[in-house]
Formats: sequence, C-alpha cells, structure tokens
Amino acid sequence: MAGKKLVECIPNFSEGRRSEVIESIADEIRKYRDVRFLDLSSDPDHNRTVMTFLGDEEEVEKAAFDAVARAAELIDMEAHRGEHPRIGAADVIPFVPIRNISMEECVRLAHRVGKRIAEELEIPVYYYEEAALKPERRNLADIRKGNYEKLREEIASPERRPDAGPQAMHPRAGAAVVGARKPLVAFNINLATGELRIAKEIAKRVRAKDGGLKCVKALGVMLHERNIAQVSMNLVDYSKSAIYTVFEMVRAEARRYGVNIAGSEIIGLVPLEALMESARYYLQLEDFKTSQVLETHLME
Amino acid sequence: MAGKKLVECIPNFSEGRRSEVIESIADEIRKYRDVRFLDLSSDPDHNRTVMTFLGDEEEVEKAAFDAVARAAELIDMEAHRGEHPRIGAADVIPFVPIRNISMEECVRLAHRVGKRIAEELEIPVYYYEEAALKPERRNLADIRKGNYEKLREEIASPERRPDAGPQAMHPRAGAAVVGARKPLVAFNINLATGELRIAKEIAKRVRAKDGGLKCVKALGVMLHERNIAQVSMNLVDYSKSAIYTVFEMVRAEARRYGVNIAGSEIIGLVPLEALMESARYYLQLEDFKTSQVLETHLME
Repeated sequence: MAGKKLVECIPNFSEGRRSEVIESIADEIRKYRDVRFLDLSSDPDHNRTVMTFLGDEEEVEKAAFDAVARAAELIDMEAHRGEHPRIGAADVIPFVPIRNISMEECVRLAHRVGKRIAEELEIPVYYYEEAALKPERRNLADIRKGNYEKLREEIASPERRPDAGPQAMHPRAGAAVVGARKPLVAFNINLATGELRIAKEIAKRVRAKDGGLKCVKALGVMLHERNIAQVSMNLVDYSKSAIYTVFEMVRAEARRYGVNIAGSEIIGLVPLEALMESARYYLQLEDFKTSQVLETHLME
Repeated sequence: MAGKKLVECIPNFSEGRRSEVIESIADEIRKYRDVRFLDLSSDPDHNRTVMTFLGDEEEVEKAAFDAVARAAELIDMEAHRGEHPRIGAADVIPFVPIRNISMEECVRLAHRVGKRIAEELEIPVYYYEEAALKPERRNLADIRKGNYEKLREEIASPERRPDAGPQAMHPRAGAAVVGARKPLVAFNINLATGELRIAKEIAKRVRAKDGGLKCVKALGVMLHERNIAQVSMNLVDYSKSAIYTVFEMVRAEARRYGVNIAGSEIIGLVPLEALMESARYYLQLEDFKTSQVLETHLME
C-alpha cells in the first residue's frame, strides 16, 4: 500500500429524485481529473443521494467544496421531504483517511472545507466525529435532532449554535455537518413486513444508543415504494461491530415478530476488510488473510 | 484494470515438511524483481507446498522453470510420502490469465515451459486443462491416476505416454503436469470427526465425477495431526459452483452422519469475485457490486 496520500469523501445530499440536480452536483466532483468518482447511490424514498469519491487531499478538498456550493444552489430545504434525518442541502460531508494520511490531517481538512462553506456560502456549519469542537457534537444524530424544521427554530439557542458561519439557517440550503471519521459501512436490512413499528423496535435493540451494539447506529424507516420496513444502519467501526454480527442480531430480533429478512443492501463503498469477517464467519474459515484476496496484490 | 499483461502461476511441489527445501525453491521465484511472490502454503500432512506468484509473461515463464529445476534437484519422489495425489517433485504447474492476456497466450506459455522441462531437465511432461493435447488429458486426476508409484510402471504404455520428454520417469523428480486454466479456488472443509470414510462419502456426493456439482473436484483426506477428516476440494469455475454452494452442500451431507463442520480453509489466493457471491448469499445482499469494494478502485 505505497503511493500518494488518499482521502475519501462521502457527501450526502438532500435530493434523491431529480436526476438533473444529482448529476449537476456530481459533475462538480467529476471535473477534477485526479479524483476518482467511485459511487453514486440515490434513494427516492429517503430523497437522498450519497456520493463517494477518492483522491489526494488537495483535489478532494476542492471537489467537496464545489459540490456543496452546487447543492446549495439547486436544493431548497423548504421544499424537501424525505424519510432520512437531514438538516441541509449538502447534509453531511465526512472525510475518511484511506492511505498515507492521518486522522489529524483529515480533521484539519474538514475544518478548512467547513470554514469555506461558512464564509463563502454563508451556510452555518457543525463539526462532528473526530472533527468535533465539543464532545456533544461528536454524534451526528445529536446535531441533526429534530431535523431541518426544528433546527431552523432553535439554531440561535446556545446549545445549538453552529461551530462556524452565520447563526441562522441559510434560507434555502439549511445547515451543513462537516467532519472526519473512520470508514463507515452503511448497511440496511429490509424486513419481510410493511410494519414500520417492527423496524423501529429492532433498530432500538441493535443500536448503541439504547444499549445495543457499541458501534452501530440504527433507525427504522419505511420504503414506501416496496411497502417494506427497513432497519437502516451505520456501522461506525466494523472491526468492533461486524456486518455479520449486525445481520444475525437483526435476524434474531425479527424472529420475535415472526418476521424474516427480505434482503439487505450496502450503500456506497465498503472496505474489503469489512467483508472478510463475514466470509470468515459464515464459511467458518480458519486463518483466512486479506492478503489471500488476489486483488490486494494489484493495488497501486 | 489497465496496465501490463499479468499471468499467475501456482506450482505445487511434493514437499511440505522440510523448510530449507521449500525456501530454496521459493527463492528461485523471489529472485525475479518484477514477479510478485504472493503466497506459500505448506501442508505437512499432504507433504505438499503450493506457491503463488504473479507477473508479466516473460518473468513468470523464467521463474516457473527455475523453480521446477530446483525442485527436481531437491525432492526425491522415491522417498516421498503424503496424502495428496502426486506424480512428481514439481507436480503441477498451471498458468492462469489474470489481466490483459488471453487463455490462448497462457496455453502457449505452458507449452514453452513444458518443452524446457522435458528437454533441459529430462522430466516427462503432461499437458492438462486448456493446454491439453488430447481430450482425455484435460482432467488432472486422470493424468495422476495411481500416483507416482503406479505411473512409474505404466508410463511407457500407449495411453500413459507423456506429451513431451523422455518416455520414462525421471529417476528422482518423477513427472510434471503443466497447463493453463481459469482461476481455481482450493477450498477444504474440516469435519468434526476423525472418520475418513465420512469425508470420502461426502466428497463423492459433491464432486462432478460422481454426479455432484459440475465444477467441483473433491477428495476425502485425513489430517492426522489434528485427527480430523477433511473434504479437500478444487472449485474449477467459481462462477458456476460458488464457495457458499459447496459449503452448504457439504454441511447438508455431513448432517447425514450427525457430523458438524469444524472449519474450512482457502489455500493460496482467491479472486475477490469468488468471495462476493458468498457475501451476497449469506447477508442476502441485493444488487451488491464488486466495484463497491473500496480496494478495487486502488488497483494499478
């Protein structure tokens, strides 16, 4: 794993339906030649798009800012409806160290991008996870409490005051959360039921917040198009809460209601290592090393 | 996946115990600077070592020949004992197209290396799989029938005559099988029993030869050190017989005897795609693409 510094950026935008808007934001990233645009995943129910790109620090910094600026132009939070928690057009912008770069460097990168968003776009900015300035801002869910609609009312209060930028919502773009964190696995499990209540109950059981798995965040949401309830999760440290652990725990909890798992999905990118533990578990592999995967030897 | 032509070579040597012999053979490969030595897996029970290396055609060709020459010097088949079928010191030498190279080119490569082994080392050579000159030589098991001991007696007979080289065994090194094939997954499942009979019965059920899975070769072998019976398999086309399919079939057959699976192992390298199907199956992943694995975007 030699070579140049690589940072991943996974901005989440509050638009999952209008493809011309999504493409226009993506183009701001694609125009950088040394940035690899890795994935674009839109969900019409969540009305949300996750983009993933990778590159050296400098280009990723520029691409992230340009995409946020475009989203602020094209997305009006006053008109936005969607299942997923959100407070802004460019809702969350995390930077993740991938290679030859420290978490500290990613924190500084997040603060530089946040400063530009606050000053040049006049959007209030919160710093989260490793980039948080206060311990109570580490957790994204706490920052997004009450969503766009509630934050709009409370933003000037002492406990919700932004870390940078204006002390009021941007009239269209809302607010933005910028940060640095470890690689995260966005993992959703679809239940063979249309009962949202069951997904919500299961989410409670598996998430850290309510005494479940330490490194899991979870929500019960409804996929209206498929009439399916979903446990929507983030595994914030897959070395502690593995994909298979979460899957088996959700399966076990669903049994309580006589409900099966209909399927699951990984949103965006996943580090190979996060899949390895599941392969080892299900196939009972003894001593199976990541370096046994052929492709790991073909990397730059 | 741009870049230079890449061939993988996975020679199997009839020595899994004497580390100085194994290292001396490995050094013949490691001395080539543009060859990546990927894996070395020795099994004392099988008394066998599998080496895996990758590089451009020309260097892989030289490294393969040099390793075979060294094995012929250091391994005496007259003294060799081991569970695994074998007919020579350098028992099997397959070439596998990995990138920017066709199967046809790998077949020509196999024939060039085979010719040198036959002429310079005076070892009888058989060509197998895609490099076979006769249809009845495609299958490795047919060539190795009766092992070294039997082939020594029968080698001059019309049906067992080598494809190249002397029409008699090399007095120490035996014979060699050289070929070209698709990527193969060497997958062994350990049973929670010391009864070899059970492993043999299960092997029969799962392998193509006896009406099982089309792309699976299987043997029941004994791991004496652990007192465990093992179903030792090659998945010759993982796009047809996936790892999870084989695992679940062995599990189901073992149930017949009230036997559980104790563990499993993948020997050497495995293409990422071969693991993907198992991840999709066990985690019920809908529409999970290989390109969602972060590392696939970091390749040369």
